[in-house]
Amino acid sequence: MIFNSAMDNLTQKLRDFRTGTISEADMLEFLSHFPFSRDREIKLDFHRRLRRGVPEAIYGRSKSLDQLRKIIGKFMEMGEEILVTKIEPDVYATLSKDFQKLRYHFPARIITFDHDPILVQKGSLLVVSGGASDEAVAEEAFVSSAYLGNPTQREYDVGVACLPRILDLQGKMDEHSAVIAVAGMEGALPSVVAGLTATPVIAVPTSIGYGANFSGISALLAMLNSCSGGVSVVNIDNGFGAAYQATLINRKRQS
Amino acid sequence: MIFNSAMDNLTQKLRDFRTGTISEADMLEFLSHFPFSRDREIKLDFHRRLRRGVPEAIYGRSKSLDQLRKIIGKFMEMGEEILVTKIEPDVYATLSKDFQKLRYHFPARIITFDHDPILVQKGSLLVVSGGASDEAVAEEAFVSSAYLGNPTQREYDVGVACLPRILDLQGKMDEHSAVIAVAGMEGALPSVVAGLTATPVIAVPTSIGYGANFSGISALLAMLNSCSGGVSVVNIDNGFGAAYQATLINRKRQS
Amino acid sequence: MIFNSAMDNLTQKLRDFRTGTISEADMLEFLSHFPFSRDREIKLDFHRRLRRGVPEAIYGRSKSLDQLRKIIGKFMEMGEEILVTKIEPDVYATLSKDFQKLRYHFPARIITFDHDPILVQKGSLLVVSGGASDEAVAEEAFVSSAYLGNPTQREYDVGVACLPRILDLQGKMDEHSAVIAVAGMEGALPSVVAGLTATPVIAVPTSIGYGANFSGISALLAMLNSCSGGVSVVNIDNGFGAAYQATLINRKRQS
Amino acid sequence: MIFNSAMDNLTQKLRDFRTGTISEADMLEFLSHFPFSRDREIKLDFHRRLRRGVPEAIYGRSKSLDQLRKIIGKFMEMGEEILVTKIEPDVYATLSKDFQKLRYHFPARIITFDHDPILVQKGSLLVVSGGASDEAVAEEAFVSSAYLGNPTQREYDVGVACLPRILDLQGKMDEHSAVIAVAGMEGALPSVVAGLTATPVIAVPTSIGYGANFSGISALLAMLNSCSGGVSVVNIDNGFGAAYQATLINRKRQS
Amino acid sequence: MIFNSAMDNLTQKLRDFRTGTISEADMLEFLSHFPFSRDREIKLDFHRRLRRGVPEAIYGRSKSLDQLRKIIGKFMEMGEEILVTKIEPDVYATLSKDFQKLRYHFPARIITFDHDPILVQKGSLLVVSGGASDEAVAEEAFVSSAYLGNPTQREYDVGVACLPRILDLQGKMDEHSAVIAVAGMEGALPSVVAGLTATPVIAVPTSIGYGANFSGISALLAMLNSCSGGVSVVNIDNGFGAAYQATLINRKRQS
Amino acid sequence: MIFNSAMDNLTQKLRDFRTGTISEADMLEFLSHFPFSRDREIKLDFHRRLRRGVPEAIYGRSKSLDQLRKIIGKFMEMGEEILVTKIEPDVYATLSKDFQKLRYHFPARIITFDHDPILVQKGSLLVVSGGASDEAVAEEAFVSSAYLGNPTQREYDVGVACLPRILDLQGKMDEHSAVIAVAGMEGALPSVVAGLTATPVIAVPTSIGYGANFSGISALLAMLNSCSGGVSVVNIDNGFGAAYQATLINRKRQS
Amino acid sequence: MIFNSAMDNLTQKLRDFRTGTISEADMLEFLSHFPFSRDREIKLDFHRRLRRGVPEAIYGRSKSLDQLRKIIGKFMEMGEEILVTKIEPDVYATLSKDFQKLRYHFPARIITFDHDPILVQKGSLLVVSGGASDEAVAEEAFVSSAYLGNPTQREYDVGVACLPRILDLQGKMDEHSAVIAVAGMEGALPSVVAGLTATPVIAVPTSIGYGANFSGISALLAMLNSCSGGVSVVNIDNGFGAAYQATLINRKRQS
Amino acid sequence: MIFNSAMDNLTQKLRDFRTGTISEADMLEFLSHFPFSRDREIKLDFHRRLRRGVPEAIYGRSKSLDQLRKIIGKFMEMGEEILVTKIEPDVYATLSKDFQKLRYHFPARIITFDHDPILVQKGSLLVVSGGASDEAVAEEAFVSSAYLGNPTQREYDVGVACLPRILDLQGKMDEHSAVIAVAGMEGALPSVVAGLTATPVIAVPTSIGYGANFSGISALLAMLNSCSGGVSVVNIDNGFGAAYQATLINRKRQS
Repeated sequence: MIFNSAMDNLTQKLRDFRTGTISEADMLEFLSHFPFSRDREIKLDFHRRLRRGVPEAIYGRSKSLDQLRKIIGKFMEMGEEILVTKIEPDVYATLSKDFQKLRYHFPARIITFDHDPILVQKGSLLVVSGGASDEAVAEEAFVSSAYLGNPTQREYDVGVACLPRILDLQGKMDEHSAVIAVAGMEGALPSVVAGLTATPVIAVPTSIGYGANFSGISALLAMLNSCSGGVSVVNIDNGFGAAYQATLINRKRQS
Repeated sequence: MIFNSAMDNLTQKLRDFRTGTISEADMLEFLSHFPFSRDREIKLDFHRRLRRGVPEAIYGRSKSLDQLRKIIGKFMEMGEEILVTKIEPDVYATLSKDFQKLRYHFPARIITFDHDPILVQKGSLLVVSGGASDEAVAEEAFVSSAYLGNPTQREYDVGVACLPRILDLQGKMDEHSAVIAVAGMEGALPSVVAGLTATPVIAVPTSIGYGANFSGISALLAMLNSCSGGVSVVNIDNGFGAAYQATLINRKRQS
Repeated sequence: MIFNSAMDNLTQKLRDFRTGTISEADMLEFLSHFPFSRDREIKLDFHRRLRRGVPEAIYGRSKSLDQLRKIIGKFMEMGEEILVTKIEPDVYATLSKDFQKLRYHFPARIITFDHDPILVQKGSLLVVSGGASDEAVAEEAFVSSAYLGNPTQREYDVGVACLPRILDLQGKMDEHSAVIAVAGMEGALPSVVAGLTATPVIAVPTSIGYGANFSGISALLAMLNSCSGGVSVVNIDNGFGAAYQATLINRKRQS
Repeated sequence: MIFNSAMDNLTQKLRDFRTGTISEADMLEFLSHFPFSRDREIKLDFHRRLRRGVPEAIYGRSKSLDQLRKIIGKFMEMGEEILVTKIEPDVYATLSKDFQKLRYHFPARIITFDHDPILVQKGSLLVVSGGASDEAVAEEAFVSSAYLGNPTQREYDVGVACLPRILDLQGKMDEHSAVIAVAGMEGALPSVVAGLTATPVIAVPTSIGYGANFSGISALLAMLNSCSGGVSVVNIDNGFGAAYQATLINRKRQS
Repeated sequence: MIFNSAMDNLTQKLRDFRTGTISEADMLEFLSHFPFSRDREIKLDFHRRLRRGVPEAIYGRSKSLDQLRKIIGKFMEMGEEILVTKIEPDVYATLSKDFQKLRYHFPARIITFDHDPILVQKGSLLVVSGGASDEAVAEEAFVSSAYLGNPTQREYDVGVACLPRILDLQGKMDEHSAVIAVAGMEGALPSVVAGLTATPVIAVPTSIGYGANFSGISALLAMLNSCSGGVSVVNIDNGFGAAYQATLINRKRQS
Repeated sequence: MIFNSAMDNLTQKLRDFRTGTISEADMLEFLSHFPFSRDREIKLDFHRRLRRGVPEAIYGRSKSLDQLRKIIGKFMEMGEEILVTKIEPDVYATLSKDFQKLRYHFPARIITFDHDPILVQKGSLLVVSGGASDEAVAEEAFVSSAYLGNPTQREYDVGVACLPRILDLQGKMDEHSAVIAVAGMEGALPSVVAGLTATPVIAVPTSIGYGANFSGISALLAMLNSCSGGVSVVNIDNGFGAAYQATLINRKRQS
Repeated sequence: MIFNSAMDNLTQKLRDFRTGTISEADMLEFLSHFPFSRDREIKLDFHRRLRRGVPEAIYGRSKSLDQLRKIIGKFMEMGEEILVTKIEPDVYATLSKDFQKLRYHFPARIITFDHDPILVQKGSLLVVSGGASDEAVAEEAFVSSAYLGNPTQREYDVGVACLPRILDLQGKMDEHSAVIAVAGMEGALPSVVAGLTATPVIAVPTSIGYGANFSGISALLAMLNSCSGGVSVVNIDNGFGAAYQATLINRKRQS
Repeated sequence: MIFNSAMDNLTQKLRDFRTGTISEADMLEFLSHFPFSRDREIKLDFHRRLRRGVPEAIYGRSKSLDQLRKIIGKFMEMGEEILVTKIEPDVYATLSKDFQKLRYHFPARIITFDHDPILVQKGSLLVVSGGASDEAVAEEAFVSSAYLGNPTQREYDVGVACLPRILDLQGKMDEHSAVIAVAGMEGALPSVVAGLTATPVIAVPTSIGYGANFSGISALLAMLNSCSGGVSVVNIDNGFGAAYQATLINRKRQS
């Protein structure tokens, strides 16, 4: 299905070969690279979408302004949607001078070139977070999830220091396809959440904390060692990655 | 649904209170602990099943023989199924003298007290692994997955040093609800797998390797830093945990 | 109070000096070491008791059998009580041949030469633990606490994967002088416990777990980063240390 | 005691139910959330105070100015006291334009909205620190301790490089309910202090140092490995956390 | 060959000694330092070139502007070529005021004082990189490789999330003397590349990524644990070091 | 060259297709897997040899005896050469009962099923090591290098504590295609060696040492941070990996 | 000797007690604190000098400007010499406005209030460093050493990548009482130096480097694992600490 | 002085050259290796002694029995003294069958082939240790120190949990040339010792402890971060290394 046009191309080439339009040597040469040869210009854009059904997303922090301008420019020129993460307000301010149609999501620190997402029909996602300090990462997950077409709800500031706030959500959690649980410090939230529901939990450790937090290691390790089943973990501060994984889970539901 | 009997109990108590059978003081006392009070004896068994729909599983490595005997004995006595992970052959040999009905899965190193799993109707799971050395962990995932009711397939020894083996699986992977990707050493398999499919990948780093592998840290970090979307990670060597998460994803599909 | 005998000794020396029984030179010599001068042979025994009011405790794991025999022998000879931690059953079996009066506490892995502890009059302590695998460390804390004179209760297997078990203890916890919370894996128990009570929590990470647990680091870091106030932490697997600290807290209550 | 108002509410509800003012269905609904149901707006404020008897404290460093303004504003509006830690002078300078009644404690880097603390009647606390560089953390502990109602003394710059300074405090230390020992670099102070007193020591490693200090790891590890009993540890630079734990210990003394 | 001039010097000294122009004492003195005695001023310049056949390269980041000025000045004065790595644009801007003839390579962040490189006759090198974020390091390798005389090609943005891009290069790779594979995040690129070719791969982990990337550790460990043979690794972000090693390999080819 | 037999197969298939012996559908099916389709049974054997020109090598430590028997048996049955690393003497003793033709190399801890290596015509390799304790790893490199067809020399015990031993080798080193430098402890040997020669150095850190050696981390880090150019590093104790890389370098020389 | 005045004081007190001028209670009180009681004001200044014979030194980096002003002011007021390390030029510029007599040593980043050092009569010290980037730390050692009264020589830029530079110093090194060897990156210099001389080597790892240097860890570990005897190590970048230790060694020589 | 015989040899060669007994070519050849050429057989033995004045010492743990037999045999055959560290009793028992003249030092775990040490005339060394568990390492330092010719004293079990034991030693410490301070756990002993004396302290962290001790890291970091001047550190458990360094310091005293 995905490589349809490539397959059509191959079939044509085979027919040309049988009819002698292509020599044996050329046929061998062609086959030695198939199905990978493609125009260099479209390398960035369509490939992931073809294979994964997900628009391109760019990790913005490690890119220079020049790199960001070049990438965004190419996408907009082609009318392709795009999502860029980890963009601080001042970077957006600069980029917005060149690209007025970009939309900035704060505090998620995400830039999108808007599109009409193909809505997931059946399932929904829930984003929960431990404390106010986790807001940026939780919002990155929330905005990304909505952008990827999932009906998404959020409940923040439900950390384990005050259990009633989490217990309050118990009923809600079973209805969703996945819960994205965002927490820093001791990272106990996903364990507690997973203990309360049969919904898979995608855990996102945040770098919020200090001292022996080690920029998120304490939360990361806690989540990897969860004594509750049904927790899998993405990288520290990777709200987008959690939304991506939850989207794939949610889409399976309607397949 | 889950706390039905507890709710019935509460309703009864409220009626008793209204009719004066229970005093206000007793009612307050009762409520101060509700909905958590329950017989001590059933603490181990039914709870998780009620909340998660998953039979009890025990991490076997850190338990003494005495602890294992006590836990297994209680479950068998009650006719409850059970799954115990990380049981070396010699431990099983000793336990089997007391419990003839246990079944040992090698090289998964899992003991089960067999049951008829409630089969998942709609989806299936796939376990892939990088090399022969990852066999024990991959089998732990495979046996656990089957035990939890998922139709499960496996393809081992498809590491990234030889890409054709992975590319060969590309078609297969899209059909499953989740792919469990088990790998040690540089842990690149989940990234490559996720790049080839729209199915969520549950990555399991293994402690296979030496030197700068640091008992699985190299694979763990590689998986957390996957440049492909759609990868979430469980603990090093945690084949059961991956099967558990994949089961929850698979069950969502039929809900 | 604590330095009573030493102080008596000093007072006597001062009186002897004033009456000329001791010369100025001898007095200066005596004072130059006081309260530190002591016969080499009793260095081990009385000192800590004098200053801290706590009998001597020995960390057993890093001692050779010869060292253990020498230390225990000296204490028993003097009729002094002693507590030795981290003694595996086979080590005890060997030691018990020489010292029949030793008492072995399993699974706490503690040897004691029994005594009548001076009971704390006013407060009590509670030991809670996350899972069955934490038993040895929890019991080390429990046996030590009782040995040090504290009325002590224990509630094991109340990990955060199943919140009702912890919530059940909420009422109990406020009554104690301190709660010793023992947990491995993600180490979330102390955070949850501290969120439910105004009693100080002494957190004991255990080395129970595997993979990214890193022999207790995950639990240790989680406890140090607790988002709940009222948690302080002792070393990994240090059940005795937690009992010691809780004892000092409990004694303050009656001072 | 703690849940007084909540309990009053519950009692009232029960009476309303008995008299028929509230239906059984409404009563069940109410109870299903109690004691957790609460207006979203007051989530931040009263809860911790109810359970722990401690006013709300906010970790300021990871909050944006906007978040700080929102949180502080809500508290002041309700006339509730508040304590915010890790606020650098320039942040305070900005906040003080909006909130004139805030009080800034330098070098503790704490903002308080002042209140009349309920003084602890019986015990007191002592803060000691190793060197001049530890001043900010030690002051954070000192200001927090006073704010939480404890008569508090401080003795700084008594590091182990010069033992006489510590030995000088030996008498003093026994009188307090707890000693908060703040130290960076090799973190030996709590071990030495605990060796000199029967008062529990709450150890605070600081990130003061360089090179193999690793932002406080050297001090943290040293404190966790203290060869003296009676030491428990809080997170690196967590002066407030130590004061919180010491407060709970001190309050036990009068209960 | 390498120490020609030094050897000439020694031969001359020996002849002078035999003819009596130099005394035995002076000869011994001379020999005690030979072949190491040299004028202090030229210490920096000629030595490495003599031994390795490679012009001097300076690691620029840890040098102050003053140090850079002094070093560059000395080289230019002597007409010697030089390459300085890790020079940010603002540092170059300042240096270029004093040294107009310097050439700045962006985004490689390299300064060169140009020369006519002695071209390698036989082999060539290939630089591949995983993503756009790795550009600076990949360009450091590319510019260095060209500067050191190697015909060099580059193919960027061929990360493992999209295998066809790498497979496309399979044919190309066998022709080169070495492939420099630059990647951050999970660092899987060198493993995949080495699995596709018989050319040695010099792996360069980059610090690109975040969270559990730990400034390049994830990529570094993955590369060290490569399950493909034929991978050896240089330091994180060390594009120059990879070019240097690849140059030595390439030169062997024509020797 | 490498894919000769596979290419022959493809050519034949194309001819069969043109002549109609194979249908278009079958041809498409065949091509969809080519060059990857292969009988499951031979997956292990021919592939790497085809692509890399290197016989199969097995990492023996993490394999069970059963796994080793199965793998070795399959190779011997097919008359294929094989090299298995990290086999302790007792493992070999057991295996040799089933496979008399295996050859054991001690102290290299390598098993080979001997073959006539295709000798490299032009270049040679040199293995140097720091101390007697590095012998096993150095021998693993030496035996592997010879097995892979390289004329190989070795000079052990030339650590930097005694510079004259290394300086003595200076002349020798320039003649080889690569120097494999094996060292534990402070791992300075490769830096010193690379400073003395224009030959590329493949550095092998060993886990020899204790304390802050951290099982080879000290040597690994030192080698990655070499101040000499021309050093690239393989995993700790990976003597085989160094020989593999050096072999590829050496083969380039004659291509 | 050191506590002379204190001893005089004690003797006097004893005499007063014998004559009845001091009561037994007061005598006991006095003795309970002796020999530690001393005026609070002189705590900072004289103490270390009395015990160690070394003027006070202050670690400047972690001190605020206010703290630095207070400390320096007190010393200057008393006419006491002082040395402050890790003072960046801008900090000095500010301080120099208040304290014109301070002397700034760049690039050592040391402030001194000058004095006439008591010169060591017999021995001398040598500071060597690996590269130009280590200059600041090497100069910190050099300036400190001179300030502490040692005749001191320095030889920089003698790293192991170019052995002749080190070998050149072989003769010199034996004459000194200690060699301070400063190096970053792979930290091999102290091993090589110690292999060439019978003089004790004080090794100073620097944080110079990048990537797997981990801010000096690579150099630190290498130095701790030196295969040469006669190397002991101080903290990363601790040039002053090395000078201090070398000074004590040098002073022993004349005692 | 040290290279006397080598120098004599050179002088002779020069004279032979001047008289024509040796040709210019031969002279150049000879000089190209001088002063490093030596018979292969004596590589192990005399070299270190010549340069350092210290007999050969062997690190025993990482050597196989075969290696140990070979090394010891060669030394004994030549009548050379030798010291081998880290030899467990069972290894000695086996070796003693072949080498009856070896002497085993327990608990130092050292084998020596005895000799008459050249006694240091002027200074002496002191070994102190924190606790009974540090005995093996402390004894390794003590036995080594005596073997290397230093009058040596020892005071064990003087850890910082009981300060009087250390204070008691204050007078003694100033008399020695160096104090070797051995401690595990929090490693505070060297800081405290250095605070009490003007003698240089060589700190030896031990791997004694558990949990967050991390096999000696806690003690190692504490010692590197000592707030007392005059502390330098050797590797974890490296009692011999400390004795070696202290010996060099002690010998300087009489030079």
